[in-house]
Order: sequence, then structure tokens, then C-alpha cells
Amino acid sequence: MALSPPLYEGKAKILYPTADPDVLLAHFKDDATAFNAQKRGTIREKGEINCTLSSHLFQKLGEAGIPTHFLAQVAPQQMHVRRVTIIPLEVVVRNRAAGSLCRQTGLPLGLPLEPPLVEFYLKDDALGDPLLTPDRLQLLNLASPSHIAQMQALALQVNQWLSDFFKDCGILLVDFKLEFGLNRDDQMVVADEISPDTCRLWLKDETDPQKRILDKDRFRQDLGQVEEAYRQVLTRVLGQAAAG
Amino acid sequence: MALSPPLYEGKAKILYPTADPDVLLAHFKDDATAFNAQKRGTIREKGEINCTLSSHLFQKLGEAGIPTHFLAQVAPQQMHVRRVTIIPLEVVVRNRAAGSLCRQTGLPLGLPLEPPLVEFYLKDDALGDPLLTPDRLQLLNLASPSHIAQMQALALQVNQWLSDFFKDCGILLVDFKLEFGLNRDDQMVVADEISPDTCRLWLKDETDPQKRILDKDRFRQDLGQVEEAYRQVLTRVLGQAAAG
Repeated sequence: MALSPPLYEGKAKILYPTADPDVLLAHFKDDATAFNAQKRGTIREKGEINCTLSSHLFQKLGEAGIPTHFLAQVAPQQMHVRRVTIIPLEVVVRNRAAGSLCRQTGLPLGLPLEPPLVEFYLKDDALGDPLLTPDRLQLLNLASPSHIAQMQALALQVNQWLSDFFKDCGILLVDFKLEFGLNRDDQMVVADEISPDTCRLWLKDETDPQKRILDKDRFRQDLGQVEEAYRQVLTRVLGQAAAG
Repeated sequence: MALSPPLYEGKAKILYPTADPDVLLAHFKDDATAFNAQKRGTIREKGEINCTLSSHLFQKLGEAGIPTHFLAQVAPQQMHVRRVTIIPLEVVVRNRAAGSLCRQTGLPLGLPLEPPLVEFYLKDDALGDPLLTPDRLQLLNLASPSHIAQMQALALQVNQWLSDFFKDCGILLVDFKLEFGLNRDDQMVVADEISPDTCRLWLKDETDPQKRILDKDRFRQDLGQVEEAYRQVLTRVLGQAAAG
């Protein structure tokens, strides 16, 4: 298929227009970046794995009544998504302390967070995607209070569904990042992707703090076996999706 | 006076015990640091200026009914303060956007913030004094919800009084940092210091964005005339204190 020039190229995906102005083609790249793109590399077959994983998870979320931008996987690395206006905020849901939360506060890795923590970050590479307090979120005025409340509620719904689903796969959902968009009917939908690039996933029955990691932290921390970890998540999710 | 070995030495002050176990001697140093002590220098007579300024402002705040740890200025660079247990949080009140708020969010310098923004930061040099969301503040459990509410309310009271006072000195109080402590009666009091090291102060009638700066930003940004700016704040405050 001949592709039109891209509408947008991000660190992990390229968005192309299609013949239908309400539909975009998302192409998932094998490129991997971390630490605000200061670290760059390639994860073999990542595009295909993340596209397939996201497609399955978006499909299941939709069936569970949570609106997403997903329409259909149309090729191993490509999905059709509904065109949305992305809200430039990243919503992170944390069930356990990890990553920047530990680095910034000194809270111990793996500390259970009950209730889960929902955090908003400004999606702005030049500013380093800074954490926003509720006051700063309001000051920036990037989304109305009602839209922010919708994002918060949807993020918690996704967390509930996704935690249960991954648990059945033998995986602990430590934390994850969502992006949201507004479709042409002004409906808030989950956008972007759900993959080991955007989730922290730990093998539930593995206590070794390095061996258990099945997500981009293997790349961030140079732990090796990155492809194998991503592949294992896909295998478990597809197995569970078929069983469930 | 022969001093006992210090109880504590910080970047700007040294605390010594006195004969009275409930009273400490705070010695204000001329040392200046910025950017979490990555930048170091000396500001001539800073210790004397900041000790005198803080003494006057604490005295006035006390008269306005706001409890502080201040007892008396006992030498140009030294004050007696009540011994308190410092809560390891920095409370920042912002009337205008400046500093890290602008760097982190892209909000324009000088943007009026109404109502004023009250922000909590973890007082931890090793972690770089990170900004805390209300959720992170609660998770860290460094102060009870009731103590946090007291700090917030006191910070706003200090802001109201201090903004009015500086306004009468021809100075705009852009933002400032407070620290709090609990005295032996478990009363929350304002501690640390109030000075051009801990406040952003702009000359009210000066529109030049560099000339108007009367605070540590002159040191941070290498703007020169640092001592003169600190001295000018002192002169204006002492004049106003005498007049008021």
C-alpha cells in the first residue's frame, strides 16, 4: 500500500492519513528511546509486538465498555485508529512504586500503593515531561476540569481491567502511562498504545528484581533479553485473550 | 562568646546549642549556594543582612499573630531561636510565576497567580528538593494531614502579611519559601529565615526584568550588584519597619 506523507512522527509511531478523513494509520516502529530520548536503540520486532499487543488490549477494553481510538489491526506493525485531538498530558497510574516516583521521593521500589496513584505529566519533550500538581494542571489549562475528571476516572477503569487481565497472565501491572484524545463527537477516548513501552510489567512468580522485569526497563537499565521479554508478554496476553 | 560545637550546619546557617536547652543560636553565613549547591560563592555581608532582615520580619509576623521560632537578634549575624523539630518540607508560596515553575511548565515569567499557589517540596538535597503532589506528600507521611493543613494556612497568612508589607516598601513579593517546625508544645511555627535568599523580590516601579531583581536570582543568574540588592531590601524594610 502506498502511504501518504506522515501527519506526525513520534518516538515510537508514525501516523498517516487514510482515504477516510476520520481514520488514521498508526505504524509502530522498532525504535526504542528512554530518558526523554537521551538513550536510543532498536528492539527487534518491537513494532509488531507492540502493535499486536495494543490491538488486543484496546479490543478487550472496548468490549469492557472503555472507549479507545482503536479500530483494527491492518498489518503486523499497523493499526487503524480513529482520528482524535490528543490532549498533551500523560496520565500515569501506579499500583506499585517504581521509576521516577522512587528516584524523586526515595519511596522503596515495589511499595504497594493503595489506592492506586494517578499522576498527570505534561507531554512536552523539551520540558522533560514534568510531573504536574493538580494546581499546575489547572493553571496550564490544557484540559477542562471536567475532561481531567474523565481522564482520571477512565485511567482508573483501565487500571482495574488491565490489572485483572495481566494477573490472569501471571503478570503484575506495576504502573502504566495513558494518553487520551477527544474524537470528533468530543468523546474522551484512550489513545496512543498499551505495551511494554508504556507499562511496567513484572512476572508475578519471580522475586529476582531484575529477572522479573518484562518491560522497557530492560532496555533502560541494559538488562539484556529485551526482545524475549516483550515476546513473552505478547505470548501470555495472546494465550489469555484466547482463553478468556 | 565561646560557642559549643554546632548542632547542625546547613548551606546558609549554623545552629549552636545555648545554656537553655530550649534555645538555639542561629549564625547566618555569608556563603551563597544555588541550584542545589552546584553553584557556590560568597555574598559580602549577606549573613548580617539576612539575620537582621529575618529578625525584623519574624518580629513583625509575631506581632501579627503568626507564630515563629524567633526570639531575639543577639549579634549582627546571630539570632536566638526556639528549638523546634523541623519538618523536612519546603513550602513555597507563589504570587507570580518564576523560577522552577516557569522552567518546568513553560508558564511565562511574571504571570500573576490568583489565588496564590502553595507548593510543597521535599527538603532533601540528595534528591534535589523535588516538587510533591498532594498524593506524594501524603505517601511520604512526613507530616500529618492536620499539620500539612496548618502549614498551608500559615503560609497563606505569611504571604498576605508579607506581600502587604513589601508592597509598602515598593517591592513585589513574587514568591518565597518557608520551613516549619514543631516546638516542644507541638505548636507549628515558622522557622528558618525570610530573606532575599528565600524570597523573590522585584522592585515594584522597575520594569526592566533584570534591574528589578533584588534577590538571590542576581547570584543565580550572575547579574552583578548582589550585595547592593540585598542591602537595598534591608534599607527599605528597616525604613518601613520604623515608619509602620
